[in-house]
Amino acid sequence: MIKEINIGCASTKTKYGKRLDTTIVELNPSAKLSGLFTSNKFKSAPVQVCLNQIKTKMKGKKMLIINAGNANAATGEAGIRDTNKLIKNISALSGLPSNQILPFSTGVVGELLDMKSLTPAFSECFKNLKKNSWDDFATAIMTTDTKNKLVKLTGKVGSKKYQIIGIAKGVGMIEPNMATTLSYVFTDLKLPENILKKLHKKICDHTFNAISIDGDQSPSDSSILVATGSNDINIKNNLARIERDLFSVFSKLSEKLVLDGEGSTKLLRIKVKGLSTEDACKAIALKIANSPLVKTAAYGEDPNWGRIIAAAGNTELDEFDMNKLSLKIGKYPVLVNGNLSKKYKESQGQKEFKKRNINLEVSLGKTKNSFTVIGSDLTPEYISINSDYRT
Amino acid sequence: MIKEINIGCASTKTKYGKRLDTTIVELNPSAKLSGLFTSNKFKSAPVQVCLNQIKTKMKGKKMLIINAGNANAATGEAGIRDTNKLIKNISALSGLPSNQILPFSTGVVGELLDMKSLTPAFSECFKNLKKNSWDDFATAIMTTDTKNKLVKLTGKVGSKKYQIIGIAKGVGMIEPNMATTLSYVFTDLKLPENILKKLHKKICDHTFNAISIDGDQSPSDSSILVATGSNDINIKNNLARIERDLFSVFSKLSEKLVLDGEGSTKLLRIKVKGLSTEDACKAIALKIANSPLVKTAAYGEDPNWGRIIAAAGNTELDEFDMNKLSLKIGKYPVLVNGNLSKKYKESQGQKEFKKRNINLEVSLGKTKNSFTVIGSDLTPEYISINSDYRT
Repeated sequence: MIKEINIGCASTKTKYGKRLDTTIVELNPSAKLSGLFTSNKFKSAPVQVCLNQIKTKMKGKKMLIINAGNANAATGEAGIRDTNKLIKNISALSGLPSNQILPFSTGVVGELLDMKSLTPAFSECFKNLKKNSWDDFATAIMTTDTKNKLVKLTGKVGSKKYQIIGIAKGVGMIEPNMATTLSYVFTDLKLPENILKKLHKKICDHTFNAISIDGDQSPSDSSILVATGSNDINIKNNLARIERDLFSVFSKLSEKLVLDGEGSTKLLRIKVKGLSTEDACKAIALKIANSPLVKTAAYGEDPNWGRIIAAAGNTELDEFDMNKLSLKIGKYPVLVNGNLSKKYKESQGQKEFKKRNINLEVSLGKTKNSFTVIGSDLTPEYISINSDYRT
Repeated sequence: MIKEINIGCASTKTKYGKRLDTTIVELNPSAKLSGLFTSNKFKSAPVQVCLNQIKTKMKGKKMLIINAGNANAATGEAGIRDTNKLIKNISALSGLPSNQILPFSTGVVGELLDMKSLTPAFSECFKNLKKNSWDDFATAIMTTDTKNKLVKLTGKVGSKKYQIIGIAKGVGMIEPNMATTLSYVFTDLKLPENILKKLHKKICDHTFNAISIDGDQSPSDSSILVATGSNDINIKNNLARIERDLFSVFSKLSEKLVLDGEGSTKLLRIKVKGLSTEDACKAIALKIANSPLVKTAAYGEDPNWGRIIAAAGNTELDEFDMNKLSLKIGKYPVLVNGNLSKKYKESQGQKEFKKRNINLEVSLGKTKNSFTVIGSDLTPEYISINSDYRT
């Protein structure tokens, strides 16, 4: 089980009262790490620093330092300077070289860090190492999340067990777009770095990068996967099982993000299939997931499928052929090859739209490619929360 | 002045009570016509028919037939058959060949036309030709618009006058995305077809195609520009002036659409400049205009500019360089070349965000290219209207 990782949390006692909001995670020297970061061109200061650190050879013990409340994004050179200062302090306390300390910040964009409260809080985190738990860690990274997000899984190979623990913070508005998603997943398996990175990318593409209002990413989105290596289960012989279990943890964290979206009342699972590539399927699925009209229809429990196909058609994909388009709501066919299904009844769609989880399937051809995106509805509460003045 | 055009409206007495909801417009034989249609791959039946008609040589008198309430979109072969039936009826009544009759439908998607009410209504329109006015026309094409949209302009060349009359119907949700925008603009000028088409495309790109939540288009969007040719003002010598006046009419209609957006309380004018092409500027401007977080901040009068630049950064454009990004809210510089402006005060942004019209300017380089997109805010009323069950 994962005992090689030490967690230390503290509170700046500013934005979230006495709630924990700063964290240091200490990784064992042999741990392998993979980091994936936002594709947003406007990257926060800590993301820029992380990307640089990860390029260097990070040998030996590593630390993750995380603050919630301020993303240190859009802060220019001053922001980079502040992040480097925090790292230097931890480096001085721990004796670790600066490049082995990875910084993460989440919260409001466009404000400089409050160094006066952060510096002592991180010192306290350092003192607290080993004292805090996964649960504290999951809480200390929250911003507008209503609950912390922690998923534990124990895998088995014969009589041997392995563990995967994942935590994530969501996004008030369930869209990776412009609200930070941070996730940290740990396993005790001994995964070589190349396999770790490959799995991480593949799994993220279908989990954290497949939930969204608009498929976009914030300046701060970061996902870290760590393999501590204390478990001697044979990797090569069990890779499919390990991938499935890792996928399961990432996938559960993703769904927790969607379900904790502010104001969210529905989870839409949108599968698009039959196009020449998986990417093409994904592009159409995102168009549907991100359509305000589809999202408001979901909120209103109105199976207004015209909006679904109109959103699907909003594409420059040349291979989109309306005469090949079929649509199912739940198990009910609505359109078959571009024509209205004679069997479909409004009451069938209504039944599906009354459910918490709404499944939509759009078929656009005969290939075996498919991509599923998970989205949510758009509700008055979303607007209420996001139009409140920053405080 | 434009007297060569006859308008006949009627009511199906269904969806909108006794309100006019069907229209026939009769164009004089020498009128030149340009039509631009949705780029949505899922085109409504009338758009498909229009695109085919326009390819043929439409000589002599032409008619536009328009119904509001049902878009006849996503109706497959049955939808095409219905549209063709309506055209045949008008052809029989008028003696015009079918290919000189252009059909338009706007309203709910995914339902077959109610031919029983439409057929007699169009016959009545035909009888009413010459009886109805521009104002009736503007009213009869409305769906969820709260008021009709009519713009008249009289241009002058020396002592000679020319006229431009434009009408449009908007979209409940102010986004061309999946809600029909229909527009019809008429002038008495004698514009040759090639010039007419060129001007039409150019002007639409900066007006109807520059307002949006997400830059997408509905299955039904159509824009028609007609030059009746009764005015003998010299075109070649006055083209710049004519273009400016046409642009003004299209632009005013576009703003009317945005301002009549359901629930809309703000108009955002988002200018992006300095990239290597105008298209690149447009792509970034649309990202900002379509960001739910920017739109809710506008509604909340919160100058949360972090959301603006985060939305701008959500791009795959390689030339996006965060160190070159400058942002102004109104006349106030917030960011200068990626760094926080020391002069900016929150109260300045607040002042701008309290206005009905909010101007944002994003600069990303030193070229002279720019593109301005007009968007709106996202409000609780938008959700209320769009989540109501279809009735």
